[in-house]
Amino acid sequence: MTANTPQETIGFAELSELLAAIFQGHGTSAEVARCLAHNCASAQRDGSDSHGVFRIPGYLSSLASGWVDGQAVPLVEDLAPAFVAVDARGGFAQPALATARPLVEAKARSAGIALLAIRNSHHFAALWPDVEPFAEQGLVALSFVNSMACVVPHGGHHALFGTNPIAFAAPRANGQPLVFDLATSAIANGDVQIAAREGHLLPEGYGVDRQGQPTRDPKAILDGGALLPFGGYKGSALSMMVELLAAALTGGHFSFEFDWSAHPGAQTPWTGQLLIVIDPSLGAGRNFAERCEQLIGRMHDAGQTRQPGDRRYRQRAEAERQGIRLPAHELEKLRRLAGGPA
Amino acid sequence: MTANTPQETIGFAELSELLAAIFQGHGTSAEVARCLAHNCASAQRDGSDSHGVFRIPGYLSSLASGWVDGQAVPLVEDLAPAFVAVDARGGFAQPALATARPLVEAKARSAGIALLAIRNSHHFAALWPDVEPFAEQGLVALSFVNSMACVVPHGGHHALFGTNPIAFAAPRANGQPLVFDLATSAIANGDVQIAAREGHLLPEGYGVDRQGQPTRDPKAILDGGALLPFGGYKGSALSMMVELLAAALTGGHFSFEFDWSAHPGAQTPWTGQLLIVIDPSLGAGRNFAERCEQLIGRMHDAGQTRQPGDRRYRQRAEAERQGIRLPAHELEKLRRLAGGPA
Repeated sequence: MTANTPQETIGFAELSELLAAIFQGHGTSAEVARCLAHNCASAQRDGSDSHGVFRIPGYLSSLASGWVDGQAVPLVEDLAPAFVAVDARGGFAQPALATARPLVEAKARSAGIALLAIRNSHHFAALWPDVEPFAEQGLVALSFVNSMACVVPHGGHHALFGTNPIAFAAPRANGQPLVFDLATSAIANGDVQIAAREGHLLPEGYGVDRQGQPTRDPKAILDGGALLPFGGYKGSALSMMVELLAAALTGGHFSFEFDWSAHPGAQTPWTGQLLIVIDPSLGAGRNFAERCEQLIGRMHDAGQTRQPGDRRYRQRAEAERQGIRLPAHELEKLRRLAGGPA
Repeated sequence: MTANTPQETIGFAELSELLAAIFQGHGTSAEVARCLAHNCASAQRDGSDSHGVFRIPGYLSSLASGWVDGQAVPLVEDLAPAFVAVDARGGFAQPALATARPLVEAKARSAGIALLAIRNSHHFAALWPDVEPFAEQGLVALSFVNSMACVVPHGGHHALFGTNPIAFAAPRANGQPLVFDLATSAIANGDVQIAAREGHLLPEGYGVDRQGQPTRDPKAILDGGALLPFGGYKGSALSMMVELLAAALTGGHFSFEFDWSAHPGAQTPWTGQLLIVIDPSLGAGRNFAERCEQLIGRMHDAGQTRQPGDRRYRQRAEAERQGIRLPAHELEKLRRLAGGPA
C-alpha cells in the first residue's frame, strides 16, 4: 500500500462484528464466527499485517471449498489429571482451544502442568493469541502448531515441514505478558505472500526455488519453491520437534500428509496443535512474574531495548485510542463480504 | 590433537569406574561420583569432545574451590499430581535428576505430562543424557538448562544469557530414540574452548570481543567477549525462554546472577533446570513411536540423510565394539588423578 491510499479507522468491537458477520455469512456457526473474528481482529489491531484481514480471502476460499467444516463442534476428551485432548472434527483450531481452555487451565492449576492436544484441526492464524490469555491469568504457556509442507529440512532438497511456529507466554509483574510467536522457518509464509504482492525481494537465506536453488524472489518461493528453516540445523531440529508434538503426539496430520486436491481453493492446513500450560505458583518459582520482570530489566540494561511483544502492545494501545486503520477499499470489501457470498 | 598422538582404548565400564574414582577422590559422595562418571563417560563414548573427559579439570577445580557441594543430597518435593521440584542443595543437577526420575516418570504416566523443576543445582554436562532415558521408556522429554552469562541478547551489547541448551527426546518404533541437544548460542562454550586450545578460527557470526565487536578469534571471545545467539532474534527469544523456564520457574539463579568471585577456580554454573515429560500413549497419539518413524523416513526421502543423534549412536556403537579411544597422555593423566588430589 502507498502513503496515498485513503485510510479509514474502525473500532475493535466493530471490526470483530464485521468479521463475524462475514464468517457466519460464509458458512460458519455463530460460535466459530465469534472465535475466528476475535482472533483475526486482534491480529489486525496489533499490527500483524500477515495474520489480520489479509487472511479473510483464504478463510472464505477454504470454507467455500468444503475443505474445512465451519460448523464443527469440538469434542473435548478429559483423559488424565493433566492431559486433555480435543477432536476439532475437521473444524478450526481456535474454537477447539476455546472449548477446552477452562478445563486445561483448571488442570494446570491442580496438577501444576497440563497438556492440550488438539487434532483434526485447521490453524490459519497467528499463534500468540492462543497463549497470551494464559499468561494474563498468571500461567506460563507454550504452543506448537504444524502447518503445510513448505520448508526444506536441513540438508534436504524438498519441502516437508510447515512453517511450524512456537509461541511462548509468561506473566510479568509490571506489564502485559511477555509473549513471542516465532516461525521455525526463516520467514513466515504470510510475509512471503505480502512480499510477493508488494513486489519486494527477500533477504538471502530465506528460501529456494522449485529447483532447490537459493532465491530472493518471493514469487519463485511460492511457485513450487520452498522456505528454509531459521538458524540452519538447529531451526530444522526445532521444526521437526513441532511436527512430532503438534501432529504425532496429538494424532493430527503431519504438514506433508493431507491432500486437499479434491477441494480447489482450500488454503487452511489440516494438522494438529499442542499446548503446554504451567502454573508457576507451585514450588520455588512462585514469584515468577517478579522474576520475569527482573530478567526483562536486565535485558534492557544489556541493550535489548525492545522485548518480544512490545511492538504488538504499542500498536494495540494506539488502536485502542484511535481505532484500527485500514485502507478504505479493504474496509469496503469487508463490508461487501459481510453481505454474504457474492 | 594430531594424527600422530599415541592413542589408547578403554572400555565404557572401565572409563566410568576411573572417572568415578577421580570424582570420589576429589570430594564427592559415591552416589554423586557414579552419576557424574556415567554422564561424562557417556559423552566421551558418544564422541562429544566438548562434554567428555575434557570437562574433568573444570569439575575438579570447582569442587576444590568449595563452590559446588559434591556431597549434597538432593531433596525431592512432590508438590502436585504432575509437578515435582528438587532442591539440589548446591550440588550437581545430575544426581538431583537421578533421585527424582522414578517419581517424574510415574507422574508422567498417571497424569499424562509431568514437570521436574531442579534448582540450586550445577549443570556442567551435555543435556542429551538427561532426556534420552525417558525416550527409551517410550516417553517424550524436553529439557532446558541455563548456565552462565556469556551470550549477548539480540540487539544488546553485553552478555546476559547462558548458552542455554534445549534438549528433546522422542521414542522411535525401529531405532534408538530421536534426540537433539542444541545450544541457543551460535556455538557451545565447550567448542569455543576447544577451538582456542587447538588454535582454530570460528566462522563469522558466532561471537564478539570485549568491545562488543564481531570476532572469529575464540580467545577474544573467551577473554571478556561473548557469544551471539543462533538465528538472530529468534534464538535470542528462545534463550530468554530458557532463562525463564530453567531459573525463574524452578527458583534457580539466572545465568547472570551468581557470583563465584569468592571461589577462585569455580567453573560450574549455579542455576536451575526444567524437564517436561509426556506420555504419548494417552489420547490419539498412542502410536507415537510409529509416527516418529514415519516422519524420519520422509525426512530421509527429502534428502536429510543424517538425523539428530545419528552421529552419537554411530560413535557409541563403534566404542562398544572397539572401546573408547583417547590420547594415551590424557588417559595417563586421568589415571594419575584417580589417585586423589596432587
